[in-house]
Amino acid sequence: MKSTPHWLHVSTLLVSGLACISAWAADWSDADLAAAAALRDQAMSGTQAFDHVSSLVTEVGPRFAGSAGDAASTRWALNRMGTAGLSHIRTQDVLVPRWIRGTCEISITAPFPQKLVAVSLGGSIGTDDEGIEADVLPVASLDALNALRPAEVKGKIVFIDQRMPRTRDVSGYASTVPIRAQGPSAAAKLGAVALVIRSVGTSPERVAHTGNMTYRPDAPRIPAFAISNPDADVLGRQLKGDKPVRMRLHSTARELPPAWSANVIGEIFGTDRSSEIVLIGAHLDSWDLGHGAIDDGAGVAIVLEAARLIAKSNRKPSRTIRVVLFANEEFGLSGAREYAKSIGEEFAKHVVAFEADLGQGPAWRLESRVAPEALPAIAQIHKVLEPLNVSLGGNETTGAPDLRPLREAGLPVLDIGMDATKYFDVHHTVNDTLAQVDAKVLDQSVAAYVATIWLAANKQGDFGRLPAQPANP
Amino acid sequence: MKSTPHWLHVSTLLVSGLACISAWAADWSDADLAAAAALRDQAMSGTQAFDHVSSLVTEVGPRFAGSAGDAASTRWALNRMGTAGLSHIRTQDVLVPRWIRGTCEISITAPFPQKLVAVSLGGSIGTDDEGIEADVLPVASLDALNALRPAEVKGKIVFIDQRMPRTRDVSGYASTVPIRAQGPSAAAKLGAVALVIRSVGTSPERVAHTGNMTYRPDAPRIPAFAISNPDADVLGRQLKGDKPVRMRLHSTARELPPAWSANVIGEIFGTDRSSEIVLIGAHLDSWDLGHGAIDDGAGVAIVLEAARLIAKSNRKPSRTIRVVLFANEEFGLSGAREYAKSIGEEFAKHVVAFEADLGQGPAWRLESRVAPEALPAIAQIHKVLEPLNVSLGGNETTGAPDLRPLREAGLPVLDIGMDATKYFDVHHTVNDTLAQVDAKVLDQSVAAYVATIWLAANKQGDFGRLPAQPANP
Repeated sequence: MKSTPHWLHVSTLLVSGLACISAWAADWSDADLAAAAALRDQAMSGTQAFDHVSSLVTEVGPRFAGSAGDAASTRWALNRMGTAGLSHIRTQDVLVPRWIRGTCEISITAPFPQKLVAVSLGGSIGTDDEGIEADVLPVASLDALNALRPAEVKGKIVFIDQRMPRTRDVSGYASTVPIRAQGPSAAAKLGAVALVIRSVGTSPERVAHTGNMTYRPDAPRIPAFAISNPDADVLGRQLKGDKPVRMRLHSTARELPPAWSANVIGEIFGTDRSSEIVLIGAHLDSWDLGHGAIDDGAGVAIVLEAARLIAKSNRKPSRTIRVVLFANEEFGLSGAREYAKSIGEEFAKHVVAFEADLGQGPAWRLESRVAPEALPAIAQIHKVLEPLNVSLGGNETTGAPDLRPLREAGLPVLDIGMDATKYFDVHHTVNDTLAQVDAKVLDQSVAAYVATIWLAANKQGDFGRLPAQPANP
Repeated sequence: MKSTPHWLHVSTLLVSGLACISAWAADWSDADLAAAAALRDQAMSGTQAFDHVSSLVTEVGPRFAGSAGDAASTRWALNRMGTAGLSHIRTQDVLVPRWIRGTCEISITAPFPQKLVAVSLGGSIGTDDEGIEADVLPVASLDALNALRPAEVKGKIVFIDQRMPRTRDVSGYASTVPIRAQGPSAAAKLGAVALVIRSVGTSPERVAHTGNMTYRPDAPRIPAFAISNPDADVLGRQLKGDKPVRMRLHSTARELPPAWSANVIGEIFGTDRSSEIVLIGAHLDSWDLGHGAIDDGAGVAIVLEAARLIAKSNRKPSRTIRVVLFANEEFGLSGAREYAKSIGEEFAKHVVAFEADLGQGPAWRLESRVAPEALPAIAQIHKVLEPLNVSLGGNETTGAPDLRPLREAGLPVLDIGMDATKYFDVHHTVNDTLAQVDAKVLDQSVAAYVATIWLAANKQGDFGRLPAQPANP
């Protein structure tokens, strides 16, 4: 954003407003609050975040766990952290499962033959050489599938035809992603020979949406695929006719032995409380289909740039700011688990964590999961973000996926919610490219992050501790 | 459009307005003008056009010249014309060239390896089994390529990186499509081993744009490909660095022996001048990548539905309305040439021709190529279309592609221009699906067509004759 008067004006108002708030909340000095606002406004006047994404997708591109691109992204991140002025830059070895998409060919063979645009779900087995041809059994939802009897499903290709709703937050995704994650074993337990789902994505374009799925140990493994929304429409229209619909599926997807990847970590050392850690994360890996510009190149760029702005400023944070670019978020949270395991007693020194993993933004809502006594501080952080049109949400967030092991151990998390209205048009598809990234939107997200990071790193007290949660299976 | 008061109101104003015009132009009776307005308003209140497209893309899908889908589309069209109430429905055999896309794999191998989304240009040869790997030579345009010396091009993969501008009419396409048509031989004459172009399309999505190309007899044949806009961006950014960029290309595209296809023709018999013909066309074939919903399922639906509305009305046209659904427009105008050749002396009985081949609409401009003495009649047709927000363009149109042989022989043509602002986002790509079609927009296009057809079929005099033009090579 080249013209700054609007933001400067808002900032002036804000600082005077905050002076009143700080009279009853002693979490920050006026100077800290003013520094947060200054960093925010600096970001709004233009950042290098877009350049970070552009460099990552041009010089690395897709970086699926264990691939050559994944290894290239580790080198890229090390160099980029150095240029950003971070210290104690290092990698942390992470063993990642290895899966190869191979080829995928799906077609309707009757009544009206058509090839469909399809992808294997992440982790799916392939078919044998002959492929699979069978009648198609459409179901409206995972619940509808689970209500069927084995006799109705046996030998069929199950087609779950539920459309993901478009929402500003992740609720539309959350309501449909179980189809992808649990659908294959649900269908297999009833005797299906394969599963085909309408993509868990909102794009009207002819791109299919991949993503992780998990086989249950108590069900046979069957191949699982997603078809694009327009292809699901074609299949749905053929199924409305009076003739049986048959499909043919072929895929060479397969598992390989695990491979080594790495978390990449860098820091801005704190001054008086350097042993205390504010963790900001993003994930370095991407799915194999797109360039990973939105998921999660944007997140990488936002946290790198926020850290760079602080590292290059003339102010040092009280606590240490630790940037963690996680390995393999997409295919099993390997990096997050490795990080949580590795920190041991240092866990107690982690004050709060947050991660950028919902695209470029704009940031629109601040959520948290902190001890009740820290809620006034959250309200105060929100006051600093309010000029960015960020609203204040609840205290029930789960944070981004890589935070799960830390959150389950009781660490408070923050969540700067990104506007996801269009995110699921491109997420996990070939369309996740730089063409979907807007530099000014990215700047606004950096502004929200940099101010929040600064405040978290300089807060007088901590954010408390929460009861440990039972780990998800 | 369910609520009609607006249109009824406009129609009432219009009929009174036309009464004045008809006082000085005797081309139509007041009853004919009123009938045209009534057909127009009937179409605006809702048509079956969307159902025609839906049926075609669901029951046939892609229908590239000579393919199984092409044959299925002939059967579909015969049945659909019957249901629409047309008479004298028949096919006309058309021999079509046959080309198979096969596989296409393109990647950057250095400095930063990435796979690219690419398609073979229509008619391109494939590579040999080993594929082609060579340094990339970027050029900004076809003119820039033609200005190079052979020593600069020899052994290189030429990359023409010119972006198609987005325009409401076809001028953006017209200004860049020579890259696709002429680029391969231009590069080959200078010693290039292959040609890669930025897609001649406006989509920011990761879909590549195919289309016809022609090898010149005086140049070697080299493989030719288009990459999507985001992939061209990646390649362009790598080329801006200081390291040489290499690509690897592999394709199994190949030519097969010619096959039989067919024009499908049906008529609404005229009353007092039944031997005189008003030709309305669209093309039944599509490219192989998409479903052909926009190109040219929409055109097929518009002319079929306009004809159906007239056939099912209680008014009979004075002249015969002939609907021609042409075979193989995309890959060489085979159907158009066969039709023009077949009519012999009946050419003299053709009064005017127009074709819907620019997507769903909305119709926004009426253009023509008629004898000067017929221009007042064009203005009068425009008055009937004006309530649809259709403007009056010039008298220099070339009409749609299938009209070329007739136009070159001197037949007057009309051209109901469609708004093409978004058309080239999906045209010739996998994204050409029903999801891109809007039923209400189609209805407006049908309204423009049905009124114009009615007026052309009932005009007192004809549209004159134009000097024959030399055929394009």
